[in-house]
Amino acid sequence: MEALAANGTDSLQRAVAGVTAVSGVAGKRRFEEQRSVFDKRLRFSVRQTESAYRYRDLVVKKQDGFTHILLSTKSSENNSLNPDVMKEMQSAMATAAADDSKLVLLSAVGSIFCFGLDFIYFIRRLTDDRKKESIKMAETIRTFVNTFIQFKKPIIVAVNGPAVGLGASILPLCDVVWANEKAWFQTPYTTYGQTPDACASLTFPRIMGVASANEMLLSGRKLTAQEACAKGLVSQVLWPGTFTQEVMVRIRELVTCNSVVLRESKALVRNANRAALEQANERECEALKRVWGSSQGVDSILKYLQKKIDEF
Amino acid sequence: MEALAANGTDSLQRAVAGVTAVSGVAGKRRFEEQRSVFDKRLRFSVRQTESAYRYRDLVVKKQDGFTHILLSTKSSENNSLNPDVMKEMQSAMATAAADDSKLVLLSAVGSIFCFGLDFIYFIRRLTDDRKKESIKMAETIRTFVNTFIQFKKPIIVAVNGPAVGLGASILPLCDVVWANEKAWFQTPYTTYGQTPDACASLTFPRIMGVASANEMLLSGRKLTAQEACAKGLVSQVLWPGTFTQEVMVRIRELVTCNSVVLRESKALVRNANRAALEQANERECEALKRVWGSSQGVDSILKYLQKKIDEF
Amino acid sequence: MEALAANGTDSLQRAVAGVTAVSGVAGKRRFEEQRSVFDKRLRFSVRQTESAYRYRDLVVKKQDGFTHILLSTKSSENNSLNPDVMKEMQSAMATAAADDSKLVLLSAVGSIFCFGLDFIYFIRRLTDDRKKESIKMAETIRTFVNTFIQFKKPIIVAVNGPAVGLGASILPLCDVVWANEKAWFQTPYTTYGQTPDACASLTFPRIMGVASANEMLLSGRKLTAQEACAKGLVSQVLWPGTFTQEVMVRIRELVTCNSVVLRESKALVRNANRAALEQANERECEALKRVWGSSQGVDSILKYLQKKIDEF
Repeated sequence: MEALAANGTDSLQRAVAGVTAVSGVAGKRRFEEQRSVFDKRLRFSVRQTESAYRYRDLVVKKQDGFTHILLSTKSSENNSLNPDVMKEMQSAMATAAADDSKLVLLSAVGSIFCFGLDFIYFIRRLTDDRKKESIKMAETIRTFVNTFIQFKKPIIVAVNGPAVGLGASILPLCDVVWANEKAWFQTPYTTYGQTPDACASLTFPRIMGVASANEMLLSGRKLTAQEACAKGLVSQVLWPGTFTQEVMVRIRELVTCNSVVLRESKALVRNANRAALEQANERECEALKRVWGSSQGVDSILKYLQKKIDEF
Repeated sequence: MEALAANGTDSLQRAVAGVTAVSGVAGKRRFEEQRSVFDKRLRFSVRQTESAYRYRDLVVKKQDGFTHILLSTKSSENNSLNPDVMKEMQSAMATAAADDSKLVLLSAVGSIFCFGLDFIYFIRRLTDDRKKESIKMAETIRTFVNTFIQFKKPIIVAVNGPAVGLGASILPLCDVVWANEKAWFQTPYTTYGQTPDACASLTFPRIMGVASANEMLLSGRKLTAQEACAKGLVSQVLWPGTFTQEVMVRIRELVTCNSVVLRESKALVRNANRAALEQANERECEALKRVWGSSQGVDSILKYLQKKIDEF
Repeated sequence: MEALAANGTDSLQRAVAGVTAVSGVAGKRRFEEQRSVFDKRLRFSVRQTESAYRYRDLVVKKQDGFTHILLSTKSSENNSLNPDVMKEMQSAMATAAADDSKLVLLSAVGSIFCFGLDFIYFIRRLTDDRKKESIKMAETIRTFVNTFIQFKKPIIVAVNGPAVGLGASILPLCDVVWANEKAWFQTPYTTYGQTPDACASLTFPRIMGVASANEMLLSGRKLTAQEACAKGLVSQVLWPGTFTQEVMVRIRELVTCNSVVLRESKALVRNANRAALEQANERECEALKRVWGSSQGVDSILKYLQKKIDEF
């Protein structure tokens, strides 16, 4: 890891410059994004009321027999995950765990499911105090991922659009995954100089075999919804035009099941792997601390953000 | 589990009424079914002689190099499994384990492979003494499943038709699975208020990934033979017209192999998972005791049977 | 295993006769093969210089960011593996592990990737001293396979043509596998009276499910490149006409990644299974000692070679 610690000061200076540039563009984009989120959320105005006061980055709808949690982030772009979003998610899941919901339906407002980690948020902190903030970031992810590993009711995911990085790697920690045919899946970790998260180093090889898993984890191969389904990451691909309806039909059937049977069935599947998943999460977060705690790790994120800005 | 224990007396009364209704219909169906089984078995009359005196629910044919075990149940409908059928199967497998057979070929007489547990049998006993009988049922299944886990010679399955519930979940405990293109596969456990059996909570996620496995285990998704093959539950799909011949060609080639090599190869594959499989079987049977020992569990089976009768 | 030890003297005599026959034909073939290898190697003449003095059965090219190891065996036919080839491979991998290569690219010169074990080599030694040589053979394989299990940098494989036996089973111990559409994959172990090697008894069932794995391991089913990809043995199938270029484009992109991230990512994936892989290798090699140490095992190899000669 020594190599990673070199060139610290130099890269920090470039980092600060980079972040300023990012903030300028991001500011404009955020304004537009907020307006579009506002438009999108109008459609949810009635039902949303109950959750509007409690959640800023989520829409949470308690329905008959299940809790519907939708990513609809104000504090980040593209439903990406920063500590605020992750903490809200954990809070919504804790509520669903305690109430009479038989299961959780997880999806997102808009055309994007989740773009993974919010690097604009993270890079600001990392350039302040790399060592301290990399530990903090990794701990936040560790807790977030453990929330999924340890959740006792079934989590059904309706992937409405692109699922990237942590937004894709979290899927195998859920139970059933239905994808809109327009969705795509990518974990381009090496592009932002990162090692795998959300137990993908364990779950991806188990699901699709080591050859396909490494093509995603090392080469960042992008999978269409159909490819993700053929490889076992997705349960079924549904037609875009009727996606929400199709999901709802299936959910309503699922919630007619005995809640004890649902919980016991999930426990049987999960408990066979729970210890291995927790250990994988632990190992991955330790690796993230080492990578983000190095100047090379910070450089990689900056390079990635710079590339995105240039493409803008 | 407390919730499941409520409404015991009430549901018992309804249960008894339900079973009477079931028995009436089942009686008629059983007569017809026995006649059709009789017709089917005529075709096997010559070879069957050797096994006719020993087995009521199976046809067992000792062939050159292998033992062919065919489900052909008289004591249940649709080749479904009750303690009698399971014990005969165990007995036939014990004989094949001890003689000079190199492998076991498992299939069924007629157009159905196996419809899983014989709920008509079980519901009668469950309504007598829920606690005691649920333990007895789970123990019967535990022993039956362990017979497959611990069997030392290769088990090749020729799935001639629908494989449902335990009839589908037992397949990954065998070694090679060839399916008639007309076969289909379903584990609608939650429909009859049951948790997974035959280690499906372990084997299904390992074979097809957690997303597809849960769609089968929780949502009861039905797979065609081709889908089951794409997901890894089936080795190869064979043409209905020549199914038996195609299977026999492959079996005759397999039995030319050195029996020690076959046994050692199977041991290498199985021993990597044997302990995990036995533990999964254990956990699943404990869950079944809890579910079937509750009034809600009994209600679910009754509701399922009632629905089947209504569809009749 | 007692049965295998019978008929020792008789089979040994037939073995010696068989080997003589094999050697005659093999001698002629080897001459032709050496000429064709010579032709093939001319194309690599410039770059090969660096490795020509060090390796007889490999072409090793240190490139920018990676080491390219190509099988191009002089001491065996069809890039098959004998102790000399395996030791050269281990030596080339040790060099790549120590230098600044970010990864290893493994492929082969010519139209064949690797035909597995060099049985012509092995049968000569086995007929000399079965017990001693079977142990030596198994130990050689054990060390060779452990080299792959324990290698810390990513191994990318470009499968240019048929991968048979150990040449196919080694693939899941690598990280990414790209296959030429003309390649095919087969592990006909039972044909040469052998049990699985290179952890295939563990990796094949995990990758493609036990039903497909056993069809390869017991029935010797041959997979096309597309089938191997669908089952997860191969990451992606590439067009024959541009195979090498396509591989090189991907490799050059991979070597732009941070080497620490590549190594840490690989470690996360591998370490979740490393102990299980080493144990599987151990168990498999013990089984090979038992099989090859018996007269039946030697007979099976002789029968296989005789059949190949007859087909010649």
